Amino acid sequence: MQRYFVPSNQWQDQTLTITDDDYHHIVNVMRMKEGQSIICSSNGMSYLCEIVQIHDKEVTCQVLEKLNENQELPITVTLAQGLPKGDKLDFIVQKATELGMKYFAPLQLDRSIVKWDHKKEQKKLERLRKIAKEASEQSHRAVVPTIHEKHTLKELFNNHSFDHCWVASELVAKEDVKHSPSFKEAIQQVKEGEHILLIVGPEGGFSDEEIHFLEELKCRSIRLGPRILRTETAPLYALSAMSFYFEEWRCEV
Amino acid sequence: MQRYFVPSNQWQDQTLTITDDDYHHIVNVMRMKEGQSIICSSNGMSYLCEIVQIHDKEVTCQVLEKLNENQELPITVTLAQGLPKGDKLDFIVQKATELGMKYFAPLQLDRSIVKWDHKKEQKKLERLRKIAKEASEQSHRAVVPTIHEKHTLKELFNNHSFDHCWVASELVAKEDVKHSPSFKEAIQQVKEGEHILLIVGPEGGFSDEEIHFLEELKCRSIRLGPRILRTETAPLYALSAMSFYFEEWRCEV
Repeated sequence: MQRYFVPSNQWQDQTLTITDDDYHHIVNVMRMKEGQSIICSSNGMSYLCEIVQIHDKEVTCQVLEKLNENQELPITVTLAQGLPKGDKLDFIVQKATELGMKYFAPLQLDRSIVKWDHKKEQKKLERLRKIAKEASEQSHRAVVPTIHEKHTLKELFNNHSFDHCWVASELVAKEDVKHSPSFKEAIQQVKEGEHILLIVGPEGGFSDEEIHFLEELKCRSIRLGPRILRTETAPLYALSAMSFYFEEWRCEV
Repeated sequence: MQRYFVPSNQWQDQTLTITDDDYHHIVNVMRMKEGQSIICSSNGMSYLCEIVQIHDKEVTCQVLEKLNENQELPITVTLAQGLPKGDKLDFIVQKATELGMKYFAPLQLDRSIVKWDHKKEQKKLERLRKIAKEASEQSHRAVVPTIHEKHTLKELFNNHSFDHCWVASELVAKEDVKHSPSFKEAIQQVKEGEHILLIVGPEGGFSDEEIHFLEELKCRSIRLGPRILRTETAPLYALSAMSFYFEEWRCEV
């Protein structure tokens, strides 16, 4: 069944109004009619709804039933990603949304080749927010990840707080850590409801200053297997492993 | 250090010859000189080598040292992927190579919208093999995954044998299997050195006939978290979870 995120100010009791892009999608793309059902989500909850009336520029729906779904990771994950080259950020946000990420922070790091000025940033953020919304609908989540504005490393820690900070670094993959499985230890220390910050560097990795800064804050390097992963693959590995561990392995969390 | 796969017929004792694309990469892209070092791989082994002589169309190298690397998963994974739309197969092969896949079989399934005729297949296979080679070099693997020709489901089981067969199906994600964690049970049954076949459907999923066929063969449905994943995300989740489990969690395998 088709799913739409409807902003909370468009709900009134058991009635809601759908406008703009989603109106277009329902009426012109899906060619749905009055009486048909869709699923509408808001504030982390999803509802089975019936299309009551199709107007000129909006669709009115009636809630039929609150759905008892739980598609959210039992932990909160912020992904902070060093600005990568090309359109990799689009890909990362789409896939990380499918895999359960809750917050995304684009990081302007010393070795990011890409620089965002204010105008570029606004355009990029708008695009990433659209991708996150669509990926949430597609993966049947009731929450759209929040896309933060661009941060430096310092701003990230000044503006937000986390229970755990992990850094995916290719330096760790190169070392033989067969007998110091740091990701295992790290993940075992996480309790239900805690907030994990996952920092992934850009193609060129971290500068010495950034590594020093992260060490001072006691951030933990985690190894994502022994192979060298591209910057866009690392967050998907980490999120997949977290989902596997928390949602498939220890289902009692 | 730069890495190259060199076909075994270009090695003679401790000397090897590099030609074609890799010659171009060494001489014209990297602008390397005689005396510089590279890593050359063949048959699953990697060697530190010195560039001895740069000729007109080939580079001669001398082995300095055999490297004691182990970047390979302790299990063998064949990914059989229903032909997806667009250029998703390129992406899947690149990422699955980074994540340790050993064999790749493109599957012509009933609901694959894309059809490969013989000419298209040859072109696609050539491209996928190039992507697999480059991704292996980039992720520091000593083995390039084998890209099989197109298979139907029946051909896949007629031509190859496996110890375990897993099917990633979105039907499983939709069910509440909180208390029957099938991926956990499945992964716990795998022993070192065994061969896992992972089958992923195309966008439209499997036909009833295909599901029946897979059930007859006692293939196991695995859930990759509770969210619905796109066809190109599912194999990356499964491979990441396998790497996490075999390479980070139970390092004693």
